[in-house]
Amino acid sequence: MPQSKISVGIVGGTGYTGCELLRLLIPHPVFEVSVVTARQQAGLKVSHHWPQLETLTELEFVEPDVGRLATCDLVFCATPHATAMTLVPALLEEGVRVVDLSADFRLRNIGTWERWYGVAHTAPEWVERAVYGLPEWQPDRIATARLVANPGCYPTATVLPLLPLVESGMLNGQQLIVDAKSGVSGAGRKASESLLFGHVAENFKPYGLAGHRHQPEIAQTLADAGAALEGLVFVPHLLPMFRGMEVTTYFRTDASAARMRALADAWFEGKPFLHRTEGHSVPEVASVRTSNLLRCNYFDDGAGTAIVVSVIDNLNKGAAGQAVQNANLMFGLPEDDGLNLIPASP
Amino acid sequence: MPQSKISVGIVGGTGYTGCELLRLLIPHPVFEVSVVTARQQAGLKVSHHWPQLETLTELEFVEPDVGRLATCDLVFCATPHATAMTLVPALLEEGVRVVDLSADFRLRNIGTWERWYGVAHTAPEWVERAVYGLPEWQPDRIATARLVANPGCYPTATVLPLLPLVESGMLNGQQLIVDAKSGVSGAGRKASESLLFGHVAENFKPYGLAGHRHQPEIAQTLADAGAALEGLVFVPHLLPMFRGMEVTTYFRTDASAARMRALADAWFEGKPFLHRTEGHSVPEVASVRTSNLLRCNYFDDGAGTAIVVSVIDNLNKGAAGQAVQNANLMFGLPEDDGLNLIPASP
Amino acid sequence: MPQSKISVGIVGGTGYTGCELLRLLIPHPVFEVSVVTARQQAGLKVSHHWPQLETLTELEFVEPDVGRLATCDLVFCATPHATAMTLVPALLEEGVRVVDLSADFRLRNIGTWERWYGVAHTAPEWVERAVYGLPEWQPDRIATARLVANPGCYPTATVLPLLPLVESGMLNGQQLIVDAKSGVSGAGRKASESLLFGHVAENFKPYGLAGHRHQPEIAQTLADAGAALEGLVFVPHLLPMFRGMEVTTYFRTDASAARMRALADAWFEGKPFLHRTEGHSVPEVASVRTSNLLRCNYFDDGAGTAIVVSVIDNLNKGAAGQAVQNANLMFGLPEDDGLNLIPASP
Amino acid sequence: MPQSKISVGIVGGTGYTGCELLRLLIPHPVFEVSVVTARQQAGLKVSHHWPQLETLTELEFVEPDVGRLATCDLVFCATPHATAMTLVPALLEEGVRVVDLSADFRLRNIGTWERWYGVAHTAPEWVERAVYGLPEWQPDRIATARLVANPGCYPTATVLPLLPLVESGMLNGQQLIVDAKSGVSGAGRKASESLLFGHVAENFKPYGLAGHRHQPEIAQTLADAGAALEGLVFVPHLLPMFRGMEVTTYFRTDASAARMRALADAWFEGKPFLHRTEGHSVPEVASVRTSNLLRCNYFDDGAGTAIVVSVIDNLNKGAAGQAVQNANLMFGLPEDDGLNLIPASP
Repeated sequence: MPQSKISVGIVGGTGYTGCELLRLLIPHPVFEVSVVTARQQAGLKVSHHWPQLETLTELEFVEPDVGRLATCDLVFCATPHATAMTLVPALLEEGVRVVDLSADFRLRNIGTWERWYGVAHTAPEWVERAVYGLPEWQPDRIATARLVANPGCYPTATVLPLLPLVESGMLNGQQLIVDAKSGVSGAGRKASESLLFGHVAENFKPYGLAGHRHQPEIAQTLADAGAALEGLVFVPHLLPMFRGMEVTTYFRTDASAARMRALADAWFEGKPFLHRTEGHSVPEVASVRTSNLLRCNYFDDGAGTAIVVSVIDNLNKGAAGQAVQNANLMFGLPEDDGLNLIPASP
Repeated sequence: MPQSKISVGIVGGTGYTGCELLRLLIPHPVFEVSVVTARQQAGLKVSHHWPQLETLTELEFVEPDVGRLATCDLVFCATPHATAMTLVPALLEEGVRVVDLSADFRLRNIGTWERWYGVAHTAPEWVERAVYGLPEWQPDRIATARLVANPGCYPTATVLPLLPLVESGMLNGQQLIVDAKSGVSGAGRKASESLLFGHVAENFKPYGLAGHRHQPEIAQTLADAGAALEGLVFVPHLLPMFRGMEVTTYFRTDASAARMRALADAWFEGKPFLHRTEGHSVPEVASVRTSNLLRCNYFDDGAGTAIVVSVIDNLNKGAAGQAVQNANLMFGLPEDDGLNLIPASP
Repeated sequence: MPQSKISVGIVGGTGYTGCELLRLLIPHPVFEVSVVTARQQAGLKVSHHWPQLETLTELEFVEPDVGRLATCDLVFCATPHATAMTLVPALLEEGVRVVDLSADFRLRNIGTWERWYGVAHTAPEWVERAVYGLPEWQPDRIATARLVANPGCYPTATVLPLLPLVESGMLNGQQLIVDAKSGVSGAGRKASESLLFGHVAENFKPYGLAGHRHQPEIAQTLADAGAALEGLVFVPHLLPMFRGMEVTTYFRTDASAARMRALADAWFEGKPFLHRTEGHSVPEVASVRTSNLLRCNYFDDGAGTAIVVSVIDNLNKGAAGQAVQNANLMFGLPEDDGLNLIPASP
Repeated sequence: MPQSKISVGIVGGTGYTGCELLRLLIPHPVFEVSVVTARQQAGLKVSHHWPQLETLTELEFVEPDVGRLATCDLVFCATPHATAMTLVPALLEEGVRVVDLSADFRLRNIGTWERWYGVAHTAPEWVERAVYGLPEWQPDRIATARLVANPGCYPTATVLPLLPLVESGMLNGQQLIVDAKSGVSGAGRKASESLLFGHVAENFKPYGLAGHRHQPEIAQTLADAGAALEGLVFVPHLLPMFRGMEVTTYFRTDASAARMRALADAWFEGKPFLHRTEGHSVPEVASVRTSNLLRCNYFDDGAGTAIVVSVIDNLNKGAAGQAVQNANLMFGLPEDDGLNLIPASP
């Protein structure tokens, strides 16, 4: 007997993350997209905004109206930060379950959140009830969550390969240097001069040197998992490409690459989207492009420094893919439903 | 009752087309890849050559041996030109059906073929028995073919949008100007200086100005379909991008854009991969990337010249996707089995 | 005795063309930039807007004020269309000479201009007094002009290689098909979604299919030079790259490639920026990048169709470089002063 | 009285570095290129290999013959590693001065060199007589050198911004983490699959994780300048772009960003190619493209970690530009002769 469909909504369907959600959800075997909101484009056909979806959907954008969204079993929020918190509580109260892809429910310390995002939090009571949606880390809590805070792309790429080391007690007392690089899609679809082709192509630079919002998120999750770090330095950089993210993490340890690889191999067992690259091969972004995979590997410099390399597609495992993975867990579906896309690479 | 699997082989698994075939065939509901050949990499794991396939296949490359390939029901040849003709006859005689993605069986005039490809044809008897694999044009002949000659990427993008016009008698006596532009993947994965990042990025140029092999292929198919052209000028250009192709075709006609659009809309009805873009919107390559779609539209300059614009992904509808589409027809499967991938775009 | 400096102003210093003017004029041996205007950034250091100019200029943007600009001997207008016409007459009346890089003074037919640019022309009396600034075509008129209308990038790349043919009477009665491709810098520095990296990279499409402003400009110049065309179809396309432009032009002729090459070689003699590529080699955009060069070559298909290929850097020979070349002529300087930059390629 | 010309030769004119040398030396006011060698292309016109030089040079490639090169006053060696050492001694004995852009004479410890480059050194006696050509560091030694070992691109970008800190005693006892990213031109013009557009575009990855040749070069220079490091981790990454390099360096210190900036401002005074970006602005690669500039800035995380960011054009300041700068010093010319090119950016 075929499973009956589960109705889902997408709040914020005009951005890159909303688009990736549509790409994953339209062919999903169980979820069925019934509402896509976009305040300014309400009334416009979704396929007019995203021409690659012509022939694939007849949906039109609608206003982000609670009544309309409350007809869904599940809502994905793909809005800018500080927006979901104004809408999500009403949905939850209507019994709708929510995966929020923004940062609104990720940081448990409200003061920290308010400092980084520059506004007062309007739904602090839901922050403590939200479950941080790193599916390979706490699948059981996610399965029963009403509200899942989908992790940021940088925290996903940084934290997942470290969890096997954290849980073996290896991260204890060190400073972590996290040098991260992201494709420009991470900055969203905004008509901003800094995102023009002429500013991004054949260019490269770090940013966020005065501090970046993903630093406290990484620190919180590593601490929750049991790491006792002395410090955490996080520097993101902007790559002249669209999709993809690489993180190179450095810390002092006596452990060899071989030891770290063994720990990861054991921890990744049975987790379909986590993959340590073979032998001493080095992960590259192209090998995960358009997929929900995270690939990583572990190296040491022979003098007491570990180097952890990981790659993800920031729009997929770093956003929409992970959100669907969380939703699968929430509704008791196979974790990889709709997510077994082979990387379109090269 | 689930359909039993059909065993397929890929000859030439190290090139971009071979890779795209793997991406489409590994998750295909009926075809099962059992052999992948690569003369020089025999013994190497496929996933070592294509890291994005790690975790997805345990296959190793083998020598292109007839005995081994004869265990397949169907073989895709993704070899350089003038190679398939040396292998395919033996396979056909073993009862294996073949989709050849090279040019070896596309041109019925052996003399023309030999002039363009610079070698003697070793299997002319199979040229006349091959069926030209434009699936939207002659699906019935493809369904029963033992050998399908999969069209070139330029001919696919050029001819398909013209067929509705040809069949209405609109192409009669004119000269056709075909100005085509292709991403660099069309040139294959060859360690050649002209394909280096430093030569392709931030660069653009025409090539083949002394004549290009796809000109006679386009001319043959249009003539077969009923066009009576006075001349056909074909100039390809190399784009600073990887996947995708755009063709702009010019010819004199009294027909308006509206008339051409109406003809196309009727002809494309029920053909899932052909799509005229809405209204007077202009097709763009990104909207078909990584998919088997062809999008096109029709314009006129108000002074007697028609302008036809079409876009495809040269590796997919222009090669591997169309090959799988042909294979589906050959084995009585739904035409779109394994091909309903949403463009990964942007 | 060293020549005394000639003071120049730039109106519109925040766009890509303004930036290229600064790159060419700061090291110019005779011109000295003394005023750079930018209405919205008035008061900001030029090098804050263009970080590559830090250490090279202490100038600040000022309001586009006639009094201030009237202290210059020469003003370059690098403003959007329909802006120069409101400022230039006042400058000319003050005795300042002007090179206008916008389209405001290019089309002699005011009605045509107003139809394409959608506003009433406010200075039609100056349109007839402006000299069209194709320096290799009419250097003497430019030398004495008070107002030079700097050609568009597409007309420059299209017309210059055709002039040797026009002047020999070869373009008489035919239709011209002009298939043109431009890097995205031609669209200017505007915070527009269509110019984002995510929309331009790995994408390609034609535009302006309902007609493009450069069509009448090309038609006017070819007619002025003596061509009697039956028709002119012009279709521009957007390349996934920043700088550079390629034009492929098709027309019927009995003339062979060899004949066209000989005519061009004779006509280009002594013109330092026009270059027919050697033998039958094909021009590529990279070979002119960041320079004032135009490279072209001539081909035939052996069946009565000529194919002319030309490449320029749209920001340089297609805009700022040609403007400086015109200014050199206006002030009796060597035509190539400040323009002998070797293409930074690859 | 105009200075008489100084005759220079280039050994290895077919690679990207050789090309950049030609771009800088052809318009140089004093140096005159009289010999360009290329073993395999001997007899070919230089402009046939580099079409952007058509009209600019009539030179042909010749065999790398000592007799021919000995007619030069100065020879630049732009050969692969382990090649210069076989040719340079003979040139030096002929009285020719040499700037070697390869690694052959950079590392004073022959054993270290042989371990990293995998061959026996054939001219160890010249290693100790070579001067390391970081022109802002030891201009006087360079001025009188017969043989200058031009630094690697990574060491140039890493070391120069650290020298003000080293000389103030700030680098004493710490570990340095150097996370470096380079455009693909750093790998040279080699027909290698890993350098194809299809492998580089929309991709990113670290490499050299088992150790990279530039690590000992950086360590040697910092030690020579007075740093007493506990360790030095160096991880390079490959960017999907052609030119340009960024280095992010991390180390523990009590010094604030302000203190480091003040030290750099003092040290960079009078050094025309070193530039700390204004205030707390972040250097970006585009701002140095095609120029001999190094831009950098200094940051701290407020918790005891310094972050130093620097950018160069790897082909220019990281290779050919620095080589010309060294040559200027060797011949008593102004340090910036021929090097005042404004970055062609965007």
